[in-house]
Amino acid sequence: MPNTEMKDHVYKILDLVGSSEKSIEDAIQNAITRASKTVRSMKWFEVVQTRGHIEDGSVRHYQVTLRVGFTLEG
Amino acid sequence: MPNTEMKDHVYKILDLVGSSEKSIEDAIQNAITRASKTVRSMKWFEVVQTRGHIEDGSVRHYQVTLRVGFTLEG
Amino acid sequence: MPNTEMKDHVYKILDLVGSSEKSIEDAIQNAITRASKTVRSMKWFEVVQTRGHIEDGSVRHYQVTLRVGFTLEG
Amino acid sequence: MPNTEMKDHVYKILDLVGSSEKSIEDAIQNAITRASKTVRSMKWFEVVQTRGHIEDGSVRHYQVTLRVGFTLEG
Amino acid sequence: MPNTEMKDHVYKILDLVGSSEKSIEDAIQNAITRASKTVRSMKWFEVVQTRGHIEDGSVRHYQVTLRVGFTLEG
Amino acid sequence: MPNTEMKDHVYKILDLVGSSEKSIEDAIQNAITRASKTVRSMKWFEVVQTRGHIEDGSVRHYQVTLRVGFTLEG
Amino acid sequence: MPNTEMKDHVYKILDLVGSSEKSIEDAIQNAITRASKTVRSMKWFEVVQTRGHIEDGSVRHYQVTLRVGFTLEG
Amino acid sequence: MPNTEMKDHVYKILDLVGSSEKSIEDAIQNAITRASKTVRSMKWFEVVQTRGHIEDGSVRHYQVTLRVGFTLEG
Amino acid sequence: MPNTEMKDHVYKILDLVGSSEKSIEDAIQNAITRASKTVRSMKWFEVVQTRGHIEDGSVRHYQVTLRVGFTLEG
Amino acid sequence: MPNTEMKDHVYKILDLVGSSEKSIEDAIQNAITRASKTVRSMKWFEVVQTRGHIEDGSVRHYQVTLRVGFTLEG
Amino acid sequence: MPNTEMKDHVYKILDLVGSSEKSIEDAIQNAITRASKTVRSMKWFEVVQTRGHIEDGSVRHYQVTLRVGFTLEG
Amino acid sequence: MPNTEMKDHVYKILDLVGSSEKSIEDAIQNAITRASKTVRSMKWFEVVQTRGHIEDGSVRHYQVTLRVGFTLEG
Repeated sequence: MPNTEMKDHVYKILDLVGSSEKSIEDAIQNAITRASKTVRSMKWFEVVQTRGHIEDGSVRHYQVTLRVGFTLEG
Repeated sequence: MPNTEMKDHVYKILDLVGSSEKSIEDAIQNAITRASKTVRSMKWFEVVQTRGHIEDGSVRHYQVTLRVGFTLEG
Repeated sequence: MPNTEMKDHVYKILDLVGSSEKSIEDAIQNAITRASKTVRSMKWFEVVQTRGHIEDGSVRHYQVTLRVGFTLEG
Repeated sequence: MPNTEMKDHVYKILDLVGSSEKSIEDAIQNAITRASKTVRSMKWFEVVQTRGHIEDGSVRHYQVTLRVGFTLEG
Repeated sequence: MPNTEMKDHVYKILDLVGSSEKSIEDAIQNAITRASKTVRSMKWFEVVQTRGHIEDGSVRHYQVTLRVGFTLEG
Repeated sequence: MPNTEMKDHVYKILDLVGSSEKSIEDAIQNAITRASKTVRSMKWFEVVQTRGHIEDGSVRHYQVTLRVGFTLEG
Repeated sequence: MPNTEMKDHVYKILDLVGSSEKSIEDAIQNAITRASKTVRSMKWFEVVQTRGHIEDGSVRHYQVTLRVGFTLEG
Repeated sequence: MPNTEMKDHVYKILDLVGSSEKSIEDAIQNAITRASKTVRSMKWFEVVQTRGHIEDGSVRHYQVTLRVGFTLEG
Repeated sequence: MPNTEMKDHVYKILDLVGSSEKSIEDAIQNAITRASKTVRSMKWFEVVQTRGHIEDGSVRHYQVTLRVGFTLEG
Repeated sequence: MPNTEMKDHVYKILDLVGSSEKSIEDAIQNAITRASKTVRSMKWFEVVQTRGHIEDGSVRHYQVTLRVGFTLEG
Repeated sequence: MPNTEMKDHVYKILDLVGSSEKSIEDAIQNAITRASKTVRSMKWFEVVQTRGHIEDGSVRHYQVTLRVGFTLEG
Repeated sequence: MPNTEMKDHVYKILDLVGSSEKSIEDAIQNAITRASKTVRSMKWFEVVQTRGHIEDGSVRHYQVTLRVGFTLEG
């Protein structure tokens, strides 16, 4: 919830779903890595939902829905 | 809520409002049809809100707000 | 969520529950039809909840809770 | 939201996801039909979420998450 | 959440705040008693919020916000 | 959220949408002014939603949805 | 919200609706009493919704929706 | 939800969990009684969550989470 | 919440964060002004969150998160 | 929602209600001004609720509930 | 949020609380491992709440509440 | 959601934001470690929000907002 130093910017928010077999943190990073190919200046994210896929009684993938903010000036 | 076979993809989420004079289902399809002109690889949707327009005591249009997920690889 | 052309009006919001044996859309219309006997100038609605009644393993009625906006000037 | 005649019963609530290629109403009925094989005395349902699957720019399935109440005495 | 026998009716919903020095149940009843002077055919209620007033470290009043459904045919 | 001195009253809640070209505060006042023609004894309000209308890249109107409480004894 | 001493257990959550003519507390107990015929090791509950039934301007029944946690080991 | 006479004050909000073997109302009062040893000028509360503890199929304690407002000037 | 005259359109929704040292209304306008450089046909907005930055005990910036709807045909 | 430069700090969050006869912005500032007498290092706020008091059909006070974050190191 | 390949199935949803001294991911897996003793065909999960237990200023256990979907045909 | 052995205590709830470059779990522990310098008897926490900071397309910090309960008797 903390605020930002970049107080004069306008942010656009992008909603993404990333996945990983390893961890929630890795699913977050995978979404951001993929988005960074086309979107620069991503500054913050917020986790909206954490879900996953089960196979044979084990978690197979974590899927994390994110809201990502980036500066339009970036 | 069910999960997906496409476990390695990163999804981007698009928010849309579609409308129809006929039904809620038709409003959903109209939004998706219009978006499919520019966005490929749409995989799933979630209804966020169902609203509508009234004229002379009859429903004139249904308006449905959707979240639509599509693969960035698509 | 879309906005309205009637930008100078004050709306009052009425909460209703309509029901139908046929469909969700029909339950919405039934609530509006009944309310239109005493309330004119209804302009929009929003679905708040969709519920129903089950008998012998079949949906017997849909019950839809609506918020309905009407102009006070109407 | 309306209340019930069966005021002395205790209800148990079951969460289900039904799907249909035809409509939201049909997805609701499919979930209830399948559950009625093992659960009797289902009395009411509430729609929690409406989602779906898209293929080639068309809705392929509606998926509706329901809460279903049934009497423990049933 | 249970459904109702009065499946063909249209309900109107009224939002009320009742208060009592004694209990939450009494605050609910006080709101309904007062409303029954002008509204007949009230059928069900739902508690939306429970609040209260403190004086000298003791609860002085409970204040309960209700949604009350009544039949338009009543 | 603060509580009230009028602890013995029953309140009825009215939902309104007011609009203004000037400010959010003005949209609130416009809704209350219009409602005060027929409802006396309004005591408090709560902002439920703040929306607006855009024309040519400028905010044209603010639209504020309010819940307004008034005493039934008023 | 407080946490538990039984830190190694896995809980299953059961959703119930209990009712009572007397009080909210009694409706909670009635749901738990009925469920305890078949479910052992219930440890905690959370109130999800409080509703009720009105007859002739008086509360006829309270209906309380609960989430109840019990240990799978129990 | 009702507003307050103390319109010029700034309130600070304190979140508490109280418990009681007797009733929801008693759990509320126990939390306020304990807090009043160190906080004066508590003016209002709002119930955020109602939970409890079950032993041998009976409610053993009610646990109520409250938000309590007090004046900073008090 | 009011509905719209543009009933046949499909809207896309854009999430933005605007900021201003002056007022909440100004933060809304700044977000819309910046977005209008690349997005035409913006029709309505909805305030999702109002936050801000504090320096030395004074509000330094308001930051408002908006959902903005624009027509895909525009 | 934007993030912060002060990435290593731990924040504590304080909930406040401020009021003003003038505007929502002024009610926010009044709460922060009063809290700054005892709390230093306040960095950001988030508006949780906007309410107010009505007298004779006019808004008499705005009351804004805030969450305020401050650094524990401050 | 992504959708599923298993489009014709009806899912039942099970609510569980798992715990672990190691991590959030491990608490999720522990709940699923325990449930897999009696429930086959679990396909997906959604994290509803993340909580934990503190002892002497350290996290002692993570407790994660899950919704788990499994096919009734499984 | 599980309940607690400490059934007679009154808890106070503290809201904190912790951060870490490593993981969500580490951000939780950092907030608790810092708070334990001045607050004893912390017993449980609940994650309210998970956010973070991005630099050059990588997660730089996780920021987790917690509600922490501690006994007033502690």
